[in-house]
Amino acid sequence: MALIVVKFGGTSVADVARIEVAAGKVAQEVARGNKVVVVVSAMAGVTNQLVAYCDQLGKLYDAREYDAIVASGEQVTSGLMALALQKRGLNARSFQGWQIPIITDDRHGNARVQKINAALLQERLQTGEIIVVPGFQGITADQRITTLGRGGSDTTAVALAAALQADRCDIYTDVDGVYTTDPRIVPKARKIKKISYEEMIEMASLGAKVLQIRSVETAMQDHVAVQVLSTFEDHVGSDLPGTLVVKDEDIMEKNVVTGIAYSRNEAKVTLMKVPDRPGIAAQIFEPMADAAVNVDMIVQNISADSEATDITFTIVATDVPKALKALESIESLKGVEIRVDEDVAKVSIVGIGMISHHGVASLMFRTLADKGINIQVISTSEIKISVLIQKDYMELAVRALHEAYGLEEGG
Amino acid sequence: MALIVVKFGGTSVADVARIEVAAGKVAQEVARGNKVVVVVSAMAGVTNQLVAYCDQLGKLYDAREYDAIVASGEQVTSGLMALALQKRGLNARSFQGWQIPIITDDRHGNARVQKINAALLQERLQTGEIIVVPGFQGITADQRITTLGRGGSDTTAVALAAALQADRCDIYTDVDGVYTTDPRIVPKARKIKKISYEEMIEMASLGAKVLQIRSVETAMQDHVAVQVLSTFEDHVGSDLPGTLVVKDEDIMEKNVVTGIAYSRNEAKVTLMKVPDRPGIAAQIFEPMADAAVNVDMIVQNISADSEATDITFTIVATDVPKALKALESIESLKGVEIRVDEDVAKVSIVGIGMISHHGVASLMFRTLADKGINIQVISTSEIKISVLIQKDYMELAVRALHEAYGLEEGG
Repeated sequence: MALIVVKFGGTSVADVARIEVAAGKVAQEVARGNKVVVVVSAMAGVTNQLVAYCDQLGKLYDAREYDAIVASGEQVTSGLMALALQKRGLNARSFQGWQIPIITDDRHGNARVQKINAALLQERLQTGEIIVVPGFQGITADQRITTLGRGGSDTTAVALAAALQADRCDIYTDVDGVYTTDPRIVPKARKIKKISYEEMIEMASLGAKVLQIRSVETAMQDHVAVQVLSTFEDHVGSDLPGTLVVKDEDIMEKNVVTGIAYSRNEAKVTLMKVPDRPGIAAQIFEPMADAAVNVDMIVQNISADSEATDITFTIVATDVPKALKALESIESLKGVEIRVDEDVAKVSIVGIGMISHHGVASLMFRTLADKGINIQVISTSEIKISVLIQKDYMELAVRALHEAYGLEEGG
Repeated sequence: MALIVVKFGGTSVADVARIEVAAGKVAQEVARGNKVVVVVSAMAGVTNQLVAYCDQLGKLYDAREYDAIVASGEQVTSGLMALALQKRGLNARSFQGWQIPIITDDRHGNARVQKINAALLQERLQTGEIIVVPGFQGITADQRITTLGRGGSDTTAVALAAALQADRCDIYTDVDGVYTTDPRIVPKARKIKKISYEEMIEMASLGAKVLQIRSVETAMQDHVAVQVLSTFEDHVGSDLPGTLVVKDEDIMEKNVVTGIAYSRNEAKVTLMKVPDRPGIAAQIFEPMADAAVNVDMIVQNISADSEATDITFTIVATDVPKALKALESIESLKGVEIRVDEDVAKVSIVGIGMISHHGVASLMFRTLADKGINIQVISTSEIKISVLIQKDYMELAVRALHEAYGLEEGG
């Protein structure tokens, strides 16, 4: 008897009919003799609606109240999933984040799980009960509701799998696995059977929205085997039909480039002629971190004026108001011109094999140059190379790179 | 400095714009130097939508999950109200039912408040904070979410006013007070300036949907002065613009009949030829009570068959499935025919003055007879007389009675 944590995303629980389909997947798992913990997202569209209400009251709302508001979406689905399982004659009940509790830090809107009371859930699982947990939500030590950021339900699922020492965490979604790139852009994109945690983190953070990046970090840290698979396909008799995210040692044949990721939700922020003195970067980026703005690429250029420097960095476009507020509070940036450009996209090649291969980057730059695409910012890590380009060229760049690295189906 | 609990119903918080209007009422109260606790309902339509989801999964759902689902509506409004107050520069925060906590019994879907931790709220009020509390919700002693039944936010407000020893509880709604009857049926209906708790209970329970009956019972028990008033009218400078619900000693001029109430949401259940033996009524009505079905009028007739009796009672129409389920579980009713008639309405005259007057009932019966309206069931209390009639005649009956008892404006 295995213990499986299964998680259903927003499109998998978009309405009551789909919740019943999802409940059918859970029933199959139970029929195999497994214990199951179910994690659910909000019904598709609900979280957006709740965020829109908050936005109507001003962009810079109290994140604690925001969390109390948006956490309600998952609460609804958890109750409905419990009812759908009961309708199938299964013994199920919902546990809200505060009822378990799932304790997080107090970074509201983007909190991190600190501690899960697994004992309570283990006790209930022993009685044969199916536990339904709303994803995305937790509480602080002083009992205020928190949320884990967009896609946070994946993290809830993986954190529960880790806390319960589950055998696997299945993430049911509307795609049947992780692809070499977005099939809407490249129809010949291939489904990846196995991908390493490290590659998946780069793919996820770079815009392949299959799994929330933090959930993969948590999985890597706690060695949770994660499977991405589709709610809308029949997997009866199929063993591991989706994409399995595993340790890189478990992947025999390592691709130089495993996939092409992209993100349209980028903003390039340039601080013009910043006084060039030691500590200025810390003065800029510490307040951003405090405001929970994730800074991605950072480039510092020598300005024409030798006592000043231009600093460019990228953030997700939706963080622009928070970032600007943080920047405006910095004393030493008084009078500094801030330029924001949201007409940018990020395209990245990802592959654990590139550690031991040469010429990977130059093929990328040549491919883009051949298409006349200008590179604005470059950033690299051991297993990925990212470029920032003008938004209009994004699809073209993804297609050209997918072909250049031979990722097509049958390629 | 007074402490006022103010409550806004669903139409008063139907969207963000209206929540901002409601926040303006709170700001006025604060400007008068008062401390304020705000209780909010779900945004209009939200609870119905959530109940509809549950219904799609079958009528006889687990009430504990139902409560977890429907309580979420008020959670959303509480956060939005806190944000709207903050936008006005006021110091406000939401407290969910479980965070206070508001402890109830475990009668899910129709729970009763047992205990409120007032100390926490008093402490926060001392700091000048405005407390926003979602109505309708509580938790059981073992931490499961409960709801107080339809209109339960009124009860939350009154229970909080009692626990905090507030000076007044203002119920903001979409009408400007309690009327002698529904102005949509009788345009000349008059607004009542003062009404006794007892009369208000009869008016509310009989279909004048201004206040939930249980909230008035709580108010009566704990001597909470309750005002019903409109969110959509400007009351600046007006002292007590709505209807005040008070002790009957505080009403100088007692009307024989204060108002005419009605309810369309009635069902008449008849059990045909029930074995006529001692204890049969208990065997029928105890399971109904256990199923949280409120039985209203009860009539027992001698049947043609002398060893059996017909029993007729009325319940709210929405309770029919629960009631039928409870009846089917009763051993001694096996084989008994059950007839349900939802083509009925209840019309009642209410007045604290009828205790000391004669001829009140006969005027009612004569008035209905003159209009050719057949009375199916009669039930009386010290301060009200109710009749069950065919639904089609309800408006006609209300108009005729309103005129017969001289309740018109200027009448």
